[in-house]
Amino acid sequence: GNDAAAAEALARQATLTKPPGSLGRLEEIATWLAKWGGASRRLDRVDVLIFAGNHGITAQGVSPYPAAVTAQMVANFNHGGAAINQLAQVSSATLRVVALDLDRPTADFTLEPAMDEAAFLKAVAEGYNAVRAGTDLVCLGEMGIGNTTAAAAIAAALYGGGGARWAGRGTGLDDRGMERKRAAIDTALARHAGLLGDPLMIAATFGGRELAAILGATLAARHRGIPVLLDGFVCTAAVAPLAKLRADALDHTQAAHVSAEAGHRALLGELKLQPLLDLGMRLGEGSGAALAVPMLRAALACHTGMATFAEAGVAGKPH
Amino acid sequence: GNDAAAAEALARQATLTKPPGSLGRLEEIATWLAKWGGASRRLDRVDVLIFAGNHGITAQGVSPYPAAVTAQMVANFNHGGAAINQLAQVSSATLRVVALDLDRPTADFTLEPAMDEAAFLKAVAEGYNAVRAGTDLVCLGEMGIGNTTAAAAIAAALYGGGGARWAGRGTGLDDRGMERKRAAIDTALARHAGLLGDPLMIAATFGGRELAAILGATLAARHRGIPVLLDGFVCTAAVAPLAKLRADALDHTQAAHVSAEAGHRALLGELKLQPLLDLGMRLGEGSGAALAVPMLRAALACHTGMATFAEAGVAGKPH
Repeated sequence: GNDAAAAEALARQATLTKPPGSLGRLEEIATWLAKWGGASRRLDRVDVLIFAGNHGITAQGVSPYPAAVTAQMVANFNHGGAAINQLAQVSSATLRVVALDLDRPTADFTLEPAMDEAAFLKAVAEGYNAVRAGTDLVCLGEMGIGNTTAAAAIAAALYGGGGARWAGRGTGLDDRGMERKRAAIDTALARHAGLLGDPLMIAATFGGRELAAILGATLAARHRGIPVLLDGFVCTAAVAPLAKLRADALDHTQAAHVSAEAGHRALLGELKLQPLLDLGMRLGEGSGAALAVPMLRAALACHTGMATFAEAGVAGKPH
Repeated sequence: GNDAAAAEALARQATLTKPPGSLGRLEEIATWLAKWGGASRRLDRVDVLIFAGNHGITAQGVSPYPAAVTAQMVANFNHGGAAINQLAQVSSATLRVVALDLDRPTADFTLEPAMDEAAFLKAVAEGYNAVRAGTDLVCLGEMGIGNTTAAAAIAAALYGGGGARWAGRGTGLDDRGMERKRAAIDTALARHAGLLGDPLMIAATFGGRELAAILGATLAARHRGIPVLLDGFVCTAAVAPLAKLRADALDHTQAAHVSAEAGHRALLGELKLQPLLDLGMRLGEGSGAALAVPMLRAALACHTGMATFAEAGVAGKPH
């Protein structure tokens, strides 16, 4: 990140025609964009990347929807019929969908690791390569029936508390399904207890291809100087292993929203990420991230377009 | 409001390609827009109306800024240099500024009513007439040095608790200023104790011209079938007398955000309004309202543009 640009942005904020601090999070975002947004300091080229994957853990009855819905929703994305298509359009963002081996689900991680190292790294690389140089902002999202179970298992492996702390209702699981989901997570944590010290092994063992791709895309954005909007619980769990490896690994990201999915607020707390929106959404697809794009544009527009007290001839606060 | 349109919207929500309820507040907004948005069901023509007024209560030392800043900021709005200019542009909204007798401040309401009935009704009418037929959405905002004291006094008069409950730091008041602000409110409440049963007398006695205009504009929007986004503490206090007169008077409005100004969260609670955004903003000018416009467009776009399960060939949740 560019600390000099951030300091300059902070100094400019104090001169603009408003009481100091009165734009709240918009001021913080302006400084954050200065630090992570590169030289262009524009938000014209915004990509919404959706990664899709299928999950062997669905065999444990952890979702009310059949696994076939993953591919059906990818088709829906490609035909423009999903929520994210509308949200990307309203936010003047480009939607790109990357389906990852949908007809080869990951393994059921109550029995064996979801992915071996090769499969994990391949998915990380696909995410890495999906981030295009010259993009001003990347919104990350996912689709994958069963993937809130994978996300909850990652969170439990990284932060403790088991299925009881991290399992949520996902797309709308009933009470008996919730029992199965918590049990699957706890079974898997016990089976793979030996690797809970290694964040990347956790990502491979409990995660999924779309989560691995989100991790890879987040790394790519860091290396290419592109700020990132994270979406909900699954997206946040996907990048949490990076924060466990290195405390500042997510500094170029913002949590676009806090989902209604049970574990998300606690996970954001573990990561010290403050969500921008809190609207009871729990859809995934990058929907919360896309929705927050205009707020970032608003923060940037205020920062660059406002007059200073001196320019506008407005009396400042006496000291 | 159109209850049939709202019921139809609710029924359509259940058919769209997402788990039921997973768009959270966006689903509620879509139904609310169906009820209050009239036949057009568009959000193309959005007006941001800023009303500006000056306040005799500034004689009590309740603001760190001089009263001259009101007119200076109106000039800043007209020259495009304020935060709201940038925010309106990002939200593709038209900014219109109505300055109300700036060189004739209201009376100091610790001594006498801020406005007599004629002055109050004139300001209400100016607000009423500022709402143009054919507008799809109105965002309301204000500018007026001293007006958080007026707003706090209205809230105290309507809901009790005195200056201690409702006074906030406004543009950045220090501790001694806060003592003066609380005292001014409590003095005024005692002086005008005889009229605390009449919500419109409260609006005239403790309010200001820009608050009266906001009240008038909110009435006009209701009569013309135009939904309204309310801004922060001052804007909310300006319309609170309407809710006291009639419980459903604000049903065509949404609270765009909860301000960092101390009393706003409690006031929204009294009015049972759930804010859309919570970003620590406390600028006024309609800034929070303008910022929320893309969220309403997003809700409408999802509602009208998404495919149904049947259209997209996506398997629904088994029952």
